[in-house]
Amino acid sequence: MNEGPSLIDTDVHNAVGDLIPYLPKAWHAQWKRSSVGIGGFYTSPVSVSRSDAVPDRGGAPGGDPEFMIKDHLDRYGIDYAILTGSNILAISLHPDPDYANAVVAACNDCTIETWLKVTPRFKGSVFVNASDPAEAATEIRRVGGHPDMVQVILTSAARMPYGQRFYHPIYEAAQEMGLPVAIHPGAEGRGVSGAPTPSGYPTRYMEWHNILPINYMAHINSLVCEGVFEKFPRLTFVAIEGGIAWLPHLMWRMDKNYKGLRDSTPWLKRLPSEYIVDHVRLTTQPIEEPKNPEHLVQIFQMIQAEKTVMFSSDYPHWDNDNPSLALPRMPKSMKRRILAGTAAELYGLDRKPEERQSEDRLRGEPMAPVAAFHAAGGEEEE
Amino acid sequence: MNEGPSLIDTDVHNAVGDLIPYLPKAWHAQWKRSSVGIGGFYTSPVSVSRSDAVPDRGGAPGGDPEFMIKDHLDRYGIDYAILTGSNILAISLHPDPDYANAVVAACNDCTIETWLKVTPRFKGSVFVNASDPAEAATEIRRVGGHPDMVQVILTSAARMPYGQRFYHPIYEAAQEMGLPVAIHPGAEGRGVSGAPTPSGYPTRYMEWHNILPINYMAHINSLVCEGVFEKFPRLTFVAIEGGIAWLPHLMWRMDKNYKGLRDSTPWLKRLPSEYIVDHVRLTTQPIEEPKNPEHLVQIFQMIQAEKTVMFSSDYPHWDNDNPSLALPRMPKSMKRRILAGTAAELYGLDRKPEERQSEDRLRGEPMAPVAAFHAAGGEEEE
Repeated sequence: MNEGPSLIDTDVHNAVGDLIPYLPKAWHAQWKRSSVGIGGFYTSPVSVSRSDAVPDRGGAPGGDPEFMIKDHLDRYGIDYAILTGSNILAISLHPDPDYANAVVAACNDCTIETWLKVTPRFKGSVFVNASDPAEAATEIRRVGGHPDMVQVILTSAARMPYGQRFYHPIYEAAQEMGLPVAIHPGAEGRGVSGAPTPSGYPTRYMEWHNILPINYMAHINSLVCEGVFEKFPRLTFVAIEGGIAWLPHLMWRMDKNYKGLRDSTPWLKRLPSEYIVDHVRLTTQPIEEPKNPEHLVQIFQMIQAEKTVMFSSDYPHWDNDNPSLALPRMPKSMKRRILAGTAAELYGLDRKPEERQSEDRLRGEPMAPVAAFHAAGGEEEE
Repeated sequence: MNEGPSLIDTDVHNAVGDLIPYLPKAWHAQWKRSSVGIGGFYTSPVSVSRSDAVPDRGGAPGGDPEFMIKDHLDRYGIDYAILTGSNILAISLHPDPDYANAVVAACNDCTIETWLKVTPRFKGSVFVNASDPAEAATEIRRVGGHPDMVQVILTSAARMPYGQRFYHPIYEAAQEMGLPVAIHPGAEGRGVSGAPTPSGYPTRYMEWHNILPINYMAHINSLVCEGVFEKFPRLTFVAIEGGIAWLPHLMWRMDKNYKGLRDSTPWLKRLPSEYIVDHVRLTTQPIEEPKNPEHLVQIFQMIQAEKTVMFSSDYPHWDNDNPSLALPRMPKSMKRRILAGTAAELYGLDRKPEERQSEDRLRGEPMAPVAAFHAAGGEEEE
């Protein structure tokens, strides 16, 4: 009788070697960048950051405060830069809230220590774990009083639309600390968030990037309909890097439906578009570029851009906008509001940093009162 | 010793009685309409259909062909009406493809028998089960040759964006039969489809209805980027009832990204917006109604509405549009194209029905050649 094998292991992991010789050349860059892409299927084929933004001393683009001042703020005459961090934002989509809470707190302390101390021209965003609103509120109260922290920032990818009451502790704390709440895209389809579209997953980076703004529409729709701006009347919501030209449609559709269906949202006292104009701010990059630039100006007029739109560069990312080229020809007063006026009001940056410094000096206060902030245990002094 | 109970059943279903006396009045209508809402959480609080569209002989609004001719087509001087059926469209989201395939086939036979025979002014849409593209293609070839079937229709809610290759057998069959493929909203968030937004489920009907168009953006983005219109160059995609004013943003964002990232879609030979203008048609209802109607005309000009937009009423639904009131003041030539010109070209309806009838009579053919179609086993006679 034939004595066959007596032990067969049916699951042994070999590490597949270098695939490059076997892979058609068109896929080499993607494979080198993201391999099987676990943790981020949608990665930019032109890399996320500009290679010409690598700091003189080396390291990642956007990683050196001094170089950023020279390479970006000074180059373009930018008075203040609102720092929005990096892809660490996606930590809100981690399944473990304790880990995520620890990471955002570390990120805030690191920002205060290594960025906000450098120059008063940098203003920070408080990172929070949106998936644990109670702890997010605690974090907002812990560091939101820092004089150079000017807003709360969330990743736009989420398990629920941001108007839902689950998130209200975040808005309560933000309003209490006088901070706007911003969203930033880039984690759509990752972690515990849903698919990037109502019909699942786009195929590749370009499609995914094209369609990111739909999540912004969903959040703004939710915030207004859920009555967030009635419940938190001093709250402003900042939609960073989500596009602009879709807003007329959203406002008009919401207003039309509100007229027919408003008995389902009796807490709303005004047209949805009125809440949007008063409480929502959009940032410009990546600005839409129609063949006829006048079309974009028409869109700006439809949404009262002099109140609702603020300039942003997205430095040092691949598709960042140059402040001297980004905006089309438009009325000067509108352009001034977009380049600085609205942001100055929103973030309390009404004076140039030089003036602030000299006034602070006259009053005998330190240029950036970070030391005092830390001495007081992280609470704002005043 | 105390003898306790010897048998306890810990799961017995009692039918809870009439809840109305216990429920606050504000919720009565919703409870009566949809109870716990299983199978359709988002139901219109003003009911889906106009109560004044109930046929003289009774039955559901939209259920009586003769009454529809009188109440809608004749009232507004509508030459042709493209029939789009009812919520049976959602059957594509049933987990069981065999059941869904049977239902759509029955629906098509029923439409041919009970609607298309009534008058040549009615034109039909071929229902298919989009979740089983091979069988959908078979169904398109089975009934798509009927002379009064003028398009294929899918529910816009889906498991995957409609550009993906899973669906290509549908487009192949539609192109072969010379039929456009349309999508219609209303099943978002139901059955096997995803959540209605990238961040999950809106809270109530109004929010859900406000945000339906984002799925349209996702599908059009997918269709273009996946190269569907290169692979099927004679295919037209009709986006019914999904709004219009968002299209400039989508076209501009797609074009901008294409310029930077086009090496990831080497099959595209033109700007994404050019595929859209040539291959995508939008219908008007529910038309956006900005305070300043000129704003909508500006949007129409941005998207070449004289080529891309077609009138639709959505009769007999609650928010249907009246053809004599729906459109703002605009250039006459554009209005003519929207009211009939583009649809006449797309659906091959270049002559008025009266002229068609008399010409058919001269040629000795029956007015609506349904009998001949059936005698030929469902193939078109020519």
